Amino acid sequence: MKKKNKKVNAAILIIGNEILSGRTQDKNVSFISKWLNEKCGISVGEVRVIPDIEKKIILTVLELSSKFKYVFTTGGIGPTHDDITAQSIAKAFKKKYTFHPEAYRILEKYYGKKNFNDGRKKMAMMPQDSKLIYNPSSAAPGFKIKNVLCFPGVPQILNSMIENCKKFLSKGSKTFSRTINLLTVESTISKELGLIQKKYIKNIEIGSYPFFRVGKIGVSVVLRSENKKFINLVAKEVNKVAKNKRLKIFKY
Amino acid sequence: MKKKNKKVNAAILIIGNEILSGRTQDKNVSFISKWLNEKCGISVGEVRVIPDIEKKIILTVLELSSKFKYVFTTGGIGPTHDDITAQSIAKAFKKKYTFHPEAYRILEKYYGKKNFNDGRKKMAMMPQDSKLIYNPSSAAPGFKIKNVLCFPGVPQILNSMIENCKKFLSKGSKTFSRTINLLTVESTISKELGLIQKKYIKNIEIGSYPFFRVGKIGVSVVLRSENKKFINLVAKEVNKVAKNKRLKIFKY
Repeated sequence: MKKKNKKVNAAILIIGNEILSGRTQDKNVSFISKWLNEKCGISVGEVRVIPDIEKKIILTVLELSSKFKYVFTTGGIGPTHDDITAQSIAKAFKKKYTFHPEAYRILEKYYGKKNFNDGRKKMAMMPQDSKLIYNPSSAAPGFKIKNVLCFPGVPQILNSMIENCKKFLSKGSKTFSRTINLLTVESTISKELGLIQKKYIKNIEIGSYPFFRVGKIGVSVVLRSENKKFINLVAKEVNKVAKNKRLKIFKY
Repeated sequence: MKKKNKKVNAAILIIGNEILSGRTQDKNVSFISKWLNEKCGISVGEVRVIPDIEKKIILTVLELSSKFKYVFTTGGIGPTHDDITAQSIAKAFKKKYTFHPEAYRILEKYYGKKNFNDGRKKMAMMPQDSKLIYNPSSAAPGFKIKNVLCFPGVPQILNSMIENCKKFLSKGSKTFSRTINLLTVESTISKELGLIQKKYIKNIEIGSYPFFRVGKIGVSVVLRSENKKFINLVAKEVNKVAKNKRLKIFKY
C-alpha cells in the first residue's frame, strides 16, 4: 500500500438486475465500506446499483471514475451471457476487450486443458492493460483498469479476494467511531444532540439512529471522527445529557 | 391506484451516512423493489446511496426525478439535526419548507400537547404542497412532493407505511419470474443459456446467479418476463438443457 494521504474516497457500483429486482439482498456494500475504512482509511461517498445494460454501465463508470479516487464494481464478470461488466468497461475506457495472458494461464491450469471451455475462457477476457486481482477461492481473477477495481458479485468470493487489491490503493486517514446506545426516542435528545453537533461541527460527525432490538426501543448515537480526542470529548458530553435526562445506556 | 400503463419505472434513493459507512445493512432496497413489482407492476431501474449532505441530496433528487417516473427516498426525516431530507427536497423543488397542518395535528395528538417538543414538531415540517403518506406505527408521516415519495429509514416503520402510498402510483404491467436451481457451475451451461437468451431476446430476461446453500454449489437460472407464456416456454428449454447434461435440479 502506498503513502498515506489525508482524505481518500471511493464509490461502489453494484451491477446486477438481481439486486434491483429485490430477489437478492446485497451484502457487498457493507463489507467493502467497512474494509475500506478499517484497512485503508478510505471512505465510501456514494453507492449505485444499476442493471446489466451496457450503455448504463459505460456512463456510470465514466461518471464515478471522474468523481471519485477509486470505483469498486461488483457483479457481471462471470462466464454467462448476462456478465457484461468487463466488455462494457473496456468500451468506457476505449480499451481493447481481450484475453489477459496471465488470467488465461491461471484459469487453464485451474480447470485443466480439456475442461477449459468457452464460458471459462471468457473469464480471462478483460480490458487491455488491466492488472489482476487474484482470487484464492475460485481462480477467476478480478481486475483493475485505471481507477476502477472489478470484483465478482458472490459475497464469499469477493470477501476472499479483497486483500489482494490493497497494493493498488493509496492509504487515507482512518475514521474512528464510537456508538452510545440510549434507551430513549430520538425526539427526547434531538435538541441537545443538535447543539453538541453545532459546537464540534468541524471535528466530528454525530449520527442518530433509532433501533428496535431484543424488545428494547432506543437510539444509537454514532460519533465519527479522524481524531480520537474529539470522540472522547463528545462521548463525555453525550453521556452527560443522558445522565441529566436519566436515560439508561444499553450495552450488548 | 390509477389506470394500468405498460412500463412504469422508479428509482430508490437511500439517504444516510450509516449505510455508506457499512455500519448499517440496508434492507429497504429489496423490500421496496419487491413491493413495487408485485403490488404495482413498477420496476426499479436504479438505486443510489448518498450521504446526509444537502447539496448532494438536492442534485440527486433533481436528477432522478427527471429520469424516472417515481423516486422513493428513505432516511433523514426524523427529529434530529442529521435529518435533512425534507428541507433539502424543499430547496430542490423551490418549495417553502413549512409545517404541514394535518401532519402537525397528527403528531400533536400522538404525543400530547405537553410533550410536543421542537424535535417532534420538526417531523411535521416538509415542502409546501406535500401530500401525506400515513404512518400507522409511529405517527410521523412520510410525504409525496411532485414524483418523489419520502419514507423514514427504519425498515419496520417503512414497511408498515408502504401500502399508504399506493394511491399516488400509476400501475404498470407486472414482471413474472421463475427460478430454476441447477446443481452445477455457471460455465457448464453458459453457452446453452446464451443461445436461449439470444432466441428470446425480445421476450424474456434470463439471469444466471451462482449460489452456495446448505452445502450445495449451484446456479439459479432466473427467468423474468411480462408474459407468462414465455416463462413456460423458456423453462422447458432450460430443463431440456439440464436433462441433456444430466444436471440435478435443486428444490428447497
